[in-house]
Amino acid sequence: ALGIASTATADLTPEEQIRFRQAGYSFMSWNMGRIKSNLDGNYNPEQVAAAANAINAIATSGMGSLFGPGTDRNVGNVKTRVKPEFFDNLDDVAVIAGNFVAATNALAAAANAGDEIEVSTTFGEVGQACKACHDKYRAD
Amino acid sequence: ALGIASTATADLTPEEQIRFRQAGYSFMSWNMGRIKSNLDGNYNPEQVAAAANAINAIATSGMGSLFGPGTDRNVGNVKTRVKPEFFDNLDDVAVIAGNFVAATNALAAAANAGDEIEVSTTFGEVGQACKACHDKYRAD
Ligand code: HEC
Ligand code: HEC
Repeated sequence: ALGIASTATADLTPEEQIRFRQAGYSFMSWNMGRIKSNLDGNYNPEQVAAAANAINAIATSGMGSLFGPGTDRNVGNVKTRVKPEFFDNLDDVAVIAGNFVAATNALAAAANAGDEIEVSTTFGEVGQACKACHDKYRAD
Repeated sequence: ALGIASTATADLTPEEQIRFRQAGYSFMSWNMGRIKSNLDGNYNPEQVAAAANAINAIATSGMGSLFGPGTDRNVGNVKTRVKPEFFDNLDDVAVIAGNFVAATNALAAAANAGDEIEVSTTFGEVGQACKACHDKYRAD
């Protein structure tokens, strides 16, 4: 999932890669917020399943290819919060990303099964997996 | 899918709703571009399936709830390209969105089956469905 050079994204400018990866993370965060609201309030299984499937599909979409050359710093007026350490530790990033994908698979399975208790557990695990990456590789 | 008021997004500010919907559209457009590159060049069935599943999951995530009150115009420095006509024609928007969802379901099915010919056909239909909405409801 973290193959850095891929035919299909070789054409994208660094600015485009940064914008698309931020879009993916941002859309996941909307869906994490929706699941949290459902767990805290009225649980709507269809909405939770839709949200979990969006997170899972984005997590498994191959966003690693959006961290290509030249995306390790701000480009013009496109700012990035990735830390340079990300690019020096791709093996560690791959482990973190693998854990993250596994957690989103489990969340989607629980959500599609309508199992609120299991959604609650796996939602916490996904949140931890987001945080594991941000703590090391995203600037504040 | 176009229920305008939903518990889980009632908490979001108009700015947040605009940003999240733009993130969803932007991430879909990355994935449309990847599928096009695959159809034009070397066809990688795994990448196409990942891209199609991301588009399909975002299309069915319930983005209609991100068009809440106050999101029909620019808010502070958050600009929106939605046309006011969108909010006056929610029945028509629902038809367009329904066609769009059906097209992304077909694209995902073809991509997951590894059927390049059918991916090519359904990819064209998804592109038409994006355009159908933009022509009427998105400013240039
Ligand atoms: C493998 C690493 C990794 C994982 C896993 C990860 N993130 Fe991030 N996230 C990043 C990096 C790096 C950035 C900075 C991107 C940039 O600015 O170029 C970021 C940025 C963001 C942003 C800001 C996006 C913007 O609009 O600028 C949000 C919100 C976010 N992540 C949420 C999440 C959520 C929610 C999850 C889990 C569901 C998650 N992230 C999982 C690495 C990760
Ligand atoms: C039901 C209507 C509808 C459909 C279907 C639709 N769009 Fe859009 N799209 C919009 C609207 C409205 C906006 C403006 C959003 C805003 O600025 O608030 C938009 C904005 C966008 C943007 C700009 C996002 C940004 O960062 O500002 C892109 C790119 C885009 N759409 C691509 C697509 C693609 C690709 C598809 C199909 C796979 C698609 N759209 C399907 C209505 C639609």
